[in-house]
Amino acid sequence: MRNLKVTMAYDGSAYHGYQYQDNAVSIQQTVEDTISKLLCGKHSINGCSRTDTGVHARAFVFNFRTENNIPCEGFIKAMNALLPDDIAILSCEEVNDCFHARYDSKGKEYLYRIHCSDIRDVFARNMSLNYPYTLDIEKMRSAAKLLVGTHDFAAFCKAEAKEHLKTTVRTVYDIRIEKIGEYVEIYVSGNGFLHNMVRIIVGTLIYISEGKRTEEDIISALNEGDREKAGKTVPPGGLYLNKVFY
Amino acid sequence: MRNLKVTMAYDGSAYHGYQYQDNAVSIQQTVEDTISKLLCGKHSINGCSRTDTGVHARAFVFNFRTENNIPCEGFIKAMNALLPDDIAILSCEEVNDCFHARYDSKGKEYLYRIHCSDIRDVFARNMSLNYPYTLDIEKMRSAAKLLVGTHDFAAFCKAEAKEHLKTTVRTVYDIRIEKIGEYVEIYVSGNGFLHNMVRIIVGTLIYISEGKRTEEDIISALNEGDREKAGKTVPPGGLYLNKVFY
Repeated sequence: MRNLKVTMAYDGSAYHGYQYQDNAVSIQQTVEDTISKLLCGKHSINGCSRTDTGVHARAFVFNFRTENNIPCEGFIKAMNALLPDDIAILSCEEVNDCFHARYDSKGKEYLYRIHCSDIRDVFARNMSLNYPYTLDIEKMRSAAKLLVGTHDFAAFCKAEAKEHLKTTVRTVYDIRIEKIGEYVEIYVSGNGFLHNMVRIIVGTLIYISEGKRTEEDIISALNEGDREKAGKTVPPGGLYLNKVFY
Repeated sequence: MRNLKVTMAYDGSAYHGYQYQDNAVSIQQTVEDTISKLLCGKHSINGCSRTDTGVHARAFVFNFRTENNIPCEGFIKAMNALLPDDIAILSCEEVNDCFHARYDSKGKEYLYRIHCSDIRDVFARNMSLNYPYTLDIEKMRSAAKLLVGTHDFAAFCKAEAKEHLKTTVRTVYDIRIEKIGEYVEIYVSGNGFLHNMVRIIVGTLIYISEGKRTEEDIISALNEGDREKAGKTVPPGGLYLNKVFY
């Protein structure tokens, strides 16, 4: 039995998230159906993570087991011919039998893109948050430092998602904020993420720029777990799973 | 009566070209309907040019006359709120009554984008030609020089379009080829363009890179007007009207 580690990119605009769902089209189902068609027989994949409806991936990793001896190069070419245009296989390699895309992940990096302009970018719809003002990058960078490290991120988690969790403590490795033309790109890396955590972090940093929240609010949010002290959840279209660390 | 000069950008993927058509959705109709709704009364616009189905514009210029005294800034904001997401008004200014977006144009610049990779860019579908090999930029630049200047471009025109033309002589001001990461961008500027002219020029330059055409073929194409000496017509999704000169 071979174990294949595969990296793919997708535009999540047309999908109800990564994870298989009974009554909606997911990335997982689309990819599993395509592999099963190509390799003639039902195959299941282990994704590195879930992504929500409308969230994208630049490098999502999954693994799957197969008896089929298709060469990795052939798998990439055939899959890209069969998959819809908004999903692309970037790489494929045979790995040790015990590799698991989710359990072996040491962390992930997300990217959130903000288009700072009062006029939308027609060529990047559903690909960024259009924000019609200027952002105070220095103020955001300073506040972002408070979030780096191991903290209880309960205030940065979707309420309903918390109930099923043993802990809301996570480690954020780094938050990097870059300005590229009219775009502001926010990279957040960490060992794991709560539901909506990156989107709430970005919303909080925008509130910091706007003066609607202070650095003291962030400290309170981390200490008290009060969702109201953080900012709003920004929309999914600007979010990309950018990298998975192993 | 005011005369307004307006610049807009659009992703042409969902439209049957710029020009009004009886049984298909066009950019012109969508914009005219939106202006007519906003300004309460039928308005017609004069576009600087036509673009084909699936072709985009980064800066398409049109003008229209109105009795309405909406301020230009208000017009931009209101139009961008009412228009579909794939069309955006970039600027609006009041101009001399005799200005006409098409008749006063001194030339235009088109851009054609080629994504050189054996794996498609899922975030730029319908926005470039995916070309799974490397392009020989120096060879293309050298051949492009032969096309600059005033020539009979009959060989670089869609056959059916030629019948209605008085002349197929046009002046190409410049052809600039740039490599940006995995993308090759070809900028073609001139005083006017025949139907499919830029797409056939780009197809010819790709054939030059592949060795399927020589510089001698280009000289023959220009001298003899033989369409077969030029290259194939590349798809519309990579083409953008980039600039209009006045």
